[in-house]
Amino acid sequence: MSGMIYSIIGTGAIGGYFGGRLAIAGHEVHFLLHKDYQFVKENGLDVRSVKGDFRIFPCLCYDSTKDMPKSDVVIVALKTVNNHLLKTLLPPLLKEDTIVLLIENGIGVEQDVQEMFPQVSLAAGLAFIGAGKTKPGQIDHQYNGSLTIASYSVKNRALLETLVQDLRESGVETLEAPYHLARWRKAVWNMPFNGMTVVCHAQTDELVACEATRKLIREQMSEVISAAKALGVEGLDEDFADKMIQMTIEMPPYSPSMRLDYDYHRPMEIQYLYSRPIEMARKAGFKMTCLEMLERQLILLDERGY
Amino acid sequence: MSGMIYSIIGTGAIGGYFGGRLAIAGHEVHFLLHKDYQFVKENGLDVRSVKGDFRIFPCLCYDSTKDMPKSDVVIVALKTVNNHLLKTLLPPLLKEDTIVLLIENGIGVEQDVQEMFPQVSLAAGLAFIGAGKTKPGQIDHQYNGSLTIASYSVKNRALLETLVQDLRESGVETLEAPYHLARWRKAVWNMPFNGMTVVCHAQTDELVACEATRKLIREQMSEVISAAKALGVEGLDEDFADKMIQMTIEMPPYSPSMRLDYDYHRPMEIQYLYSRPIEMARKAGFKMTCLEMLERQLILLDERGY
Repeated sequence: MSGMIYSIIGTGAIGGYFGGRLAIAGHEVHFLLHKDYQFVKENGLDVRSVKGDFRIFPCLCYDSTKDMPKSDVVIVALKTVNNHLLKTLLPPLLKEDTIVLLIENGIGVEQDVQEMFPQVSLAAGLAFIGAGKTKPGQIDHQYNGSLTIASYSVKNRALLETLVQDLRESGVETLEAPYHLARWRKAVWNMPFNGMTVVCHAQTDELVACEATRKLIREQMSEVISAAKALGVEGLDEDFADKMIQMTIEMPPYSPSMRLDYDYHRPMEIQYLYSRPIEMARKAGFKMTCLEMLERQLILLDERGY
Repeated sequence: MSGMIYSIIGTGAIGGYFGGRLAIAGHEVHFLLHKDYQFVKENGLDVRSVKGDFRIFPCLCYDSTKDMPKSDVVIVALKTVNNHLLKTLLPPLLKEDTIVLLIENGIGVEQDVQEMFPQVSLAAGLAFIGAGKTKPGQIDHQYNGSLTIASYSVKNRALLETLVQDLRESGVETLEAPYHLARWRKAVWNMPFNGMTVVCHAQTDELVACEATRKLIREQMSEVISAAKALGVEGLDEDFADKMIQMTIEMPPYSPSMRLDYDYHRPMEIQYLYSRPIEMARKAGFKMTCLEMLERQLILLDERGY
């Protein structure tokens, strides 16, 4: 046991699942909750997992980071539309070497958080799992995949290694990758499927079963790969897009997070999933024509609120 | 009175309105009806118009073109998805000089009908009016605009002039234009707004009020103009797109025909409104990237049937 102190900001499906894994393995994990605070304090955190169910009770839960201890690792799993809250949420948890691991969607997230906290060690976490929060205090983990960890500005490499080790020992399949490659690889899948499931009111299986939309999504993936290349990201090629299409054909029908946000009338993460990478690519001389069209269709739906 | 015999194939909003105008002005007009045949035979055709209501009773109506007389002008106002029916519907109505006026949506319609009937005189009719069929035998004409007539293969010019004259004297604002220019001008409005109102579940007013979609639609209009240029169509420039945007901003909220087809679970006219012009442009070396994306989104929705 490493003895590290973990804090989770945003105990939804992602924060609840990874935090829960660390906690059930015996690590000290402090959870920040919002709506579910009272419920989880009284009933604990219930994780229904394809790898076996478990329950964290009692659960170290809080409704303010001011009451939480300074931590070695802070896992941030907010919706990016709420990232501005980090300005007040993070400071009470930070000590000199604290690693802030952002398990969030999109491109440009670390850049903006680093601007808020220029000295803090940041890492990106890219979760390829299927999980949802179906009721208060209950996480449903339906599809098990990997968590890729990529250092953005981590100074203490040994601490990062300990984090990776702790996750592995807690049963999380953990991979490491260069930061830009990791973020853009995920964007290859995320950018087409998140928006297209919203605009076409479809799940992933319908989009790949229909020849017209499968071809369109394949072209959108090429746009992401070309954007990454224009930005100097190495190691991403067209084969990867073919693999992502094939993987999606083999997956059960799936609603990505943006589709769930739309269905539940929550704000969509258009900024980091679309606007930011589109703007970065344009500045590097590449126009993401189809994904910009998708972004604009999403903006209308988001402004309208349903 | 010219003494011409008119037949209307497809007595929906468009066929019913223009046929009704000719009939109330005293012309001999024969209407082919399908679902509403019995109702209109017994009750006549009721036109509620912004220019004043009128009623055609008794109405010369039929449920088969075999019972209709050979005609000087046949106005075809079917949905293009039913154009294959013309193969059997048209022959009983044709004499040597008959003009077949296709008041239908899209690009490539005349080419395909001409292939079925190589000798027939064809003209295109482009209706800029707002009309709908709200109940059996009732046409609601809500917005009055022009009908542009363009010869595609009319041999008897005098007959075409008589048709234009008859329409004018019946109260239809009739314009004439070169065929390709007329069809592509209409496509500048039709291609963006028909599909976007479906995919975004919006009416025209929302699409132009939202800055993101207004810009997108303006770019889609540019794609249509560039496609027309690649195909050698003269007389269409970017100013026209600006005018179409401005006109739409000033229009009342509007659901184009494809949106109505989608809402009422009818097949959408994707073939002539999208696939055909996109294919023609590609062969001429221009890729309509955004409109092809829209086409593919529509294909998914159309295949699913709602």
